[in-house]
Amino acid sequence: MPRIHYQQQLAQLKDKLLAMAALAEQTMDCALDGYLKSDEVLLHHVLENEAAINAAERSMDEMAYELMAMEQPTAIDLRFLLAVIKINGDLERIGDLSVNIAERARELVRLAAAELPVNMHQMGELTERMIRFAIQALLQGDAEMANSVLAMDDEVDRINRENHQSMVRMMQEHPQWTEQALNTIIISRNLERIADHATNIAEDVIFWIRGADVRHQLSLESL
Amino acid sequence: MPRIHYQQQLAQLKDKLLAMAALAEQTMDCALDGYLKSDEVLLHHVLENEAAINAAERSMDEMAYELMAMEQPTAIDLRFLLAVIKINGDLERIGDLSVNIAERARELVRLAAAELPVNMHQMGELTERMIRFAIQALLQGDAEMANSVLAMDDEVDRINRENHQSMVRMMQEHPQWTEQALNTIIISRNLERIADHATNIAEDVIFWIRGADVRHQLSLESL
Repeated sequence: MPRIHYQQQLAQLKDKLLAMAALAEQTMDCALDGYLKSDEVLLHHVLENEAAINAAERSMDEMAYELMAMEQPTAIDLRFLLAVIKINGDLERIGDLSVNIAERARELVRLAAAELPVNMHQMGELTERMIRFAIQALLQGDAEMANSVLAMDDEVDRINRENHQSMVRMMQEHPQWTEQALNTIIISRNLERIADHATNIAEDVIFWIRGADVRHQLSLESL
Repeated sequence: MPRIHYQQQLAQLKDKLLAMAALAEQTMDCALDGYLKSDEVLLHHVLENEAAINAAERSMDEMAYELMAMEQPTAIDLRFLLAVIKINGDLERIGDLSVNIAERARELVRLAAAELPVNMHQMGELTERMIRFAIQALLQGDAEMANSVLAMDDEVDRINRENHQSMVRMMQEHPQWTEQALNTIIISRNLERIADHATNIAEDVIFWIRGADVRHQLSLESL
């Protein structure tokens, strides 16, 4: 009877994690879209989402803690719960960084329009895919999918470097656009940080699956 | 007999956490000192420390995991172990951000010297104190000390804003110093992020102590 309750709670925790990941992804999307379209309504929406993400983090931590304390989880469940707690922290940081993007984008709306040649659209799409793949890898226990996230991060880093160099040139050639270019550099860096957190999630998934594998093999050997 | 072993391992984990916190603090110190003195030897040292921090993070996670799996920890120990795992992640990020500072400081050494009026020294000292206080609060279970960290963060944020504004003015007035000022802005932002992580640690300590308190009260009430 309590075991069934435990399994139900574990399933509930997975649902919550999925909902939180969707919220983090949507918040990032909102910030980026708000920046690309100079849409203040979207940018304001980011702040509302962040409060929800922060509340969800604490509630997931509590739930994971209750599950650990309730009765001794299996080794594999325990490893999964620890991965959830770490991933939870990464999702919360993605919310924070999205707020930073929104704040910079609001500054840009306030400043005179400037022509700033950066590639933020592709960078945003890649980063979004990284978050989605990392969470899917967790839920499906798919190490290969988690590995593909690590490769995408290199591409995001490359685009960020290009954006940075392009904006430095812009500031040197058009000092009157310094603030606009600087805000754009910071937005690009924040996106790159979000991609780093997706990478962290993928690494935690690999760590969890590998641990589960090792344990699985041990229990087979002991048969 | 196994209970004694468990207590020994718990004590060992605390020692490891203390060592890792000292390493993170020292790495930040090294990056900042290297920046303030344009000392490339110090800046190179930061990269070596970072590898050690990354290895320590994985090893601490494994140890916390083993402790949870070995035998059912008490509710308070479990909450402590979860706090350690979260704090562990924050310390690792402090290492990462210190590397970012060192990279930017190396760029500055390469560029022509420029007169850049920023207040990085005080900001660095405050941030260091925040890390130290947060870890001490954890080890002593001192919520008041953890709270004092949160207040210091406001001051770090204020200095960061001042640095930012000062460097934007510099870029506008001296476009030839754009890269120098930009690197300085990024160093200041990274320091501010390190202070954020110290704040996260303090919040986790409060979360842990509060949880322990609630549990303590419950057990008193049930007497």
